Amino acid sequence: MNLEHALSDLEHLDFDLFGKDFLLTTDKSESDLRAVLGLAAILQEMHRLNLDTRCFSSGIAVSIFRDQSTRTRFSFASAVNLLGLALQEFDEKKSQVAHGETVRETANMISFLCETIGIRDDMFIGKGHSYMLEVGAALDDGFARGVLHQRPAIVNLQCDIDHPTQAMADLRHLQDTFGSLSALRGKKIAMSWAYSPSYGKPLSVPQGIITLMTRFGMHVVLAHPKGYDLLPDTLTAARKFAKASGGKFEMVDSMDEAFRDADVVYPKSWAPFSVMEERTRLVEKGDDEGLKKLEKRCLQQNAKFADWECTEARMKLTREGRALYMHCLPADISGVSCKQGEVAASVFERYRIPTYQEASHKPFVIAAMILAARFRDPALLLRQYLRAGRRRAGALA
Amino acid sequence: MNLEHALSDLEHLDFDLFGKDFLLTTDKSESDLRAVLGLAAILQEMHRLNLDTRCFSSGIAVSIFRDQSTRTRFSFASAVNLLGLALQEFDEKKSQVAHGETVRETANMISFLCETIGIRDDMFIGKGHSYMLEVGAALDDGFARGVLHQRPAIVNLQCDIDHPTQAMADLRHLQDTFGSLSALRGKKIAMSWAYSPSYGKPLSVPQGIITLMTRFGMHVVLAHPKGYDLLPDTLTAARKFAKASGGKFEMVDSMDEAFRDADVVYPKSWAPFSVMEERTRLVEKGDDEGLKKLEKRCLQQNAKFADWECTEARMKLTREGRALYMHCLPADISGVSCKQGEVAASVFERYRIPTYQEASHKPFVIAAMILAARFRDPALLLRQYLRAGRRRAGALA
Amino acid sequence: MNLEHALSDLEHLDFDLFGKDFLLTTDKSESDLRAVLGLAAILQEMHRLNLDTRCFSSGIAVSIFRDQSTRTRFSFASAVNLLGLALQEFDEKKSQVAHGETVRETANMISFLCETIGIRDDMFIGKGHSYMLEVGAALDDGFARGVLHQRPAIVNLQCDIDHPTQAMADLRHLQDTFGSLSALRGKKIAMSWAYSPSYGKPLSVPQGIITLMTRFGMHVVLAHPKGYDLLPDTLTAARKFAKASGGKFEMVDSMDEAFRDADVVYPKSWAPFSVMEERTRLVEKGDDEGLKKLEKRCLQQNAKFADWECTEARMKLTREGRALYMHCLPADISGVSCKQGEVAASVFERYRIPTYQEASHKPFVIAAMILAARFRDPALLLRQYLRAGRRRAGALA
Repeated sequence: MNLEHALSDLEHLDFDLFGKDFLLTTDKSESDLRAVLGLAAILQEMHRLNLDTRCFSSGIAVSIFRDQSTRTRFSFASAVNLLGLALQEFDEKKSQVAHGETVRETANMISFLCETIGIRDDMFIGKGHSYMLEVGAALDDGFARGVLHQRPAIVNLQCDIDHPTQAMADLRHLQDTFGSLSALRGKKIAMSWAYSPSYGKPLSVPQGIITLMTRFGMHVVLAHPKGYDLLPDTLTAARKFAKASGGKFEMVDSMDEAFRDADVVYPKSWAPFSVMEERTRLVEKGDDEGLKKLEKRCLQQNAKFADWECTEARMKLTREGRALYMHCLPADISGVSCKQGEVAASVFERYRIPTYQEASHKPFVIAAMILAARFRDPALLLRQYLRAGRRRAGALA
Repeated sequence: MNLEHALSDLEHLDFDLFGKDFLLTTDKSESDLRAVLGLAAILQEMHRLNLDTRCFSSGIAVSIFRDQSTRTRFSFASAVNLLGLALQEFDEKKSQVAHGETVRETANMISFLCETIGIRDDMFIGKGHSYMLEVGAALDDGFARGVLHQRPAIVNLQCDIDHPTQAMADLRHLQDTFGSLSALRGKKIAMSWAYSPSYGKPLSVPQGIITLMTRFGMHVVLAHPKGYDLLPDTLTAARKFAKASGGKFEMVDSMDEAFRDADVVYPKSWAPFSVMEERTRLVEKGDDEGLKKLEKRCLQQNAKFADWECTEARMKLTREGRALYMHCLPADISGVSCKQGEVAASVFERYRIPTYQEASHKPFVIAAMILAARFRDPALLLRQYLRAGRRRAGALA
Repeated sequence: MNLEHALSDLEHLDFDLFGKDFLLTTDKSESDLRAVLGLAAILQEMHRLNLDTRCFSSGIAVSIFRDQSTRTRFSFASAVNLLGLALQEFDEKKSQVAHGETVRETANMISFLCETIGIRDDMFIGKGHSYMLEVGAALDDGFARGVLHQRPAIVNLQCDIDHPTQAMADLRHLQDTFGSLSALRGKKIAMSWAYSPSYGKPLSVPQGIITLMTRFGMHVVLAHPKGYDLLPDTLTAARKFAKASGGKFEMVDSMDEAFRDADVVYPKSWAPFSVMEERTRLVEKGDDEGLKKLEKRCLQQNAKFADWECTEARMKLTREGRALYMHCLPADISGVSCKQGEVAASVFERYRIPTYQEASHKPFVIAAMILAARFRDPALLLRQYLRAGRRRAGALA
């Protein structure tokens, strides 16, 4: 890619990300999203060219993971390192949050020298996003009243509503695969539920995909068995965005129908919205018995739809039988990671490397979100780093 | 603030911190303490001005937390990052310390490339401070005998005797609030025990406060119910310092009396010294049954003094009813973090932001302690960084 | 030492470490080993002289510890910091590896911005080394197919076969103690089993010692009671290397015989190979009952050889009674860390500081391995850093 062109494209975009958190793609303008994609591509190319992009000479980045994670944890760690920040994980077990500290207090206590806070809180419906808003309000207060020298930017590393770093990395992957964003217009993407022997998988990925891809004129088809509904608001948003972008959003209850002539398929398991809601209530009540029962019931229900698998036969239904297979990983691969799961082993193996490439965009997407939130003119800043041309590895060589 | 003036003030101070650990403020001269306060203020201002202060281009900082912590953990992490060091937490669960390794061996094993070690060990009377001395002796030995290229500086992040980073941050807060150190002369500060439904809180904060504030001519009143005595040595030290500084130190057994005409109030719970001693013995014996009994007894005793709360009524007793409320956080706030606790919700809310500002000094105080222990002329060094004027964020911008 | 000479010696060595993992010393040529020793010595001296050696301005280093560790953990953390990398520990408990993710997937997911991966996996016979090969193959695949911008170098931080960072640090220690590598020719080193009340200690250290020291013309004597055999392949390798280097390798079943006229003694406990194999099987079956039985049986067997202790009497048998005592630490010291163990307290105390010096080489050996694997001409690179002469501490001073 041509970095100079990419930088001037960026300079011609009218985006408004400075001083703002990145919580939901639905809150962002199309220009905002294009700016993040552009910055991510530039950072990725500069990394490939072994150029130093540390825009901070010191400062810490805090991550708060309320759910386990490998790739997002490492993506965030890598992103902040790329910008020159040091990661400090906030571990509630080690901390005193459990001991009556309020969120607003903790938010300030960890932020005196903090530039960004990455938060994953995806397990409880109605909680994750509001927790992030609460942290943000506390940071605004602390910054406005002189407690903090700088306002750390919050990056949503997955909440109950959206998984923006994943969805944006997925969009980068589509952009790379089909050549450009405009090439995505009219392309059909099937976001389909798939069977998994596990339970309680978050809804944020399918919700993130339908609300983001509809903005770029794609034909988005959401498929799932009855009872596996997503948050109503995300469906409304997807419809609205499709209308505005000249794309299309439809819902079907058949994986075959979704796959027919699809250019892209994204078969992934998730829990029904209603189950996640009940789960939230039971966790709040500390009702372990109820949770066991719920899991059992949920797994039994899943089992009814064990045929919702991304098989070779279904792949044949897609455009020329050669749709792009996508997954946020880890996938439940039939006969590999489980007896029967989301995808046939042969299909996954054929797209294994592409799914790694899909994931490889995430660190740069996160770094782009931080850069755009913390610097008024990230394009100018990166242009200066490009001119400086300092090596990242073999710095003096 | 004027950085040039602050730096030359520092250059006129005759302090002796180089190559020394910072374990107890009582070991330090007044000039030493003034130097740390000065350095902390300069580092804080340079951070506010977005100036790079990384005095190390590489090197690690080790933290050893034998008790949970949020703000001190993040303060240390932030402080070492501000100086260019990378944090490596020493986790005894992950390590082999439990497997017969001696302290002196471990101290050397973690220090080959280490510049500073922050230690929190506050739960056991007679242990924390002596553990730090033991580590220090091992480092002296290793350095003298060529095992270590540099002698890491130990910073006491709270022991059984003192909590110097907290007390010094508190002093910075008083300095900011009243305008200067000399403005503190004659000001009355009430360090008062307060009721909390929890148990076994360390004595290091009240001990740190009475031994430090008495050195700057303040009128320090220590108030607690019978049986909640502090370490006798700290009382002796407070008396001695008050005498030498022209300040005053008195002990009363009434919160009202302590609050009357106070300029500053510091209501905080702690466990009786005798209980902490017994607790230490029981932990050594691994007597869980005894520990449960002790906790029960202790909570019952606390309950007798549930009226030791910082209420609006008590605040009215202070000078013009407008004393500064201080707390090391987290506070037990009545009706917020507990049913009944150390402070009324309305009082705490009025001083919430000031308590955050109080806490905001800690990272810079810690950084100042490290800088003064590791560099012969920290003022000159910071002057060079000020002249260089390299930006911290947007380094090339 | 003279850095210029050391650098030109290095430039005259024909080594082949670039782009290669460092898994076993037996895979490396003598020049490769000399290059690592040379680089380690140079890095150590540059650190002593307070010179900046950060060859990376950003990038992460990942450590995977499948067994607890203090010194290797800190050595790796220190090594990567010395080179400018940020450590990110891969914690399988926090991650989703346990959740069906394949090794090859994880290897790529953590490596997008990763320069090196340090792995300790030493508990299961036949597992550790093959796990590292599997990770390496996944990285080759990801790099070849454009998933990764760079191929991270794997450093073996201890596997079931070898402990190369320990053995190389030990060799650096011998080099320092006896003046040079050539001075080691003909010197007798006794790698002897010693009694310990603990169980299941890895075989990698003795295996690493006999396969490495035989390459430099040393007279290596391996001593252990019947039943405490090492991996047969390592014995074969030791014989072969001794023959090639003009050294000597013999096996005896008496500690006294091994110590007689020895210049160096390395008394250390390990579990019998057969026990480790059975242990591996039982762990795989999750047979906790069987594991308890095995431990009991193994400890009883050990007890039969409680007289295999490095006593003053045995030290008298060594050359002039003044052999160098070595240990990878922590040692089981009779009357100190256990009732009866590997070494008498008085012997250990006499060599305590030398064992710390032995350990002090490890961070620099690890840094040397990374440098040689990631840069085509590490000597030229370090020469440039030497010329630049930037200070590490007091960077601007």
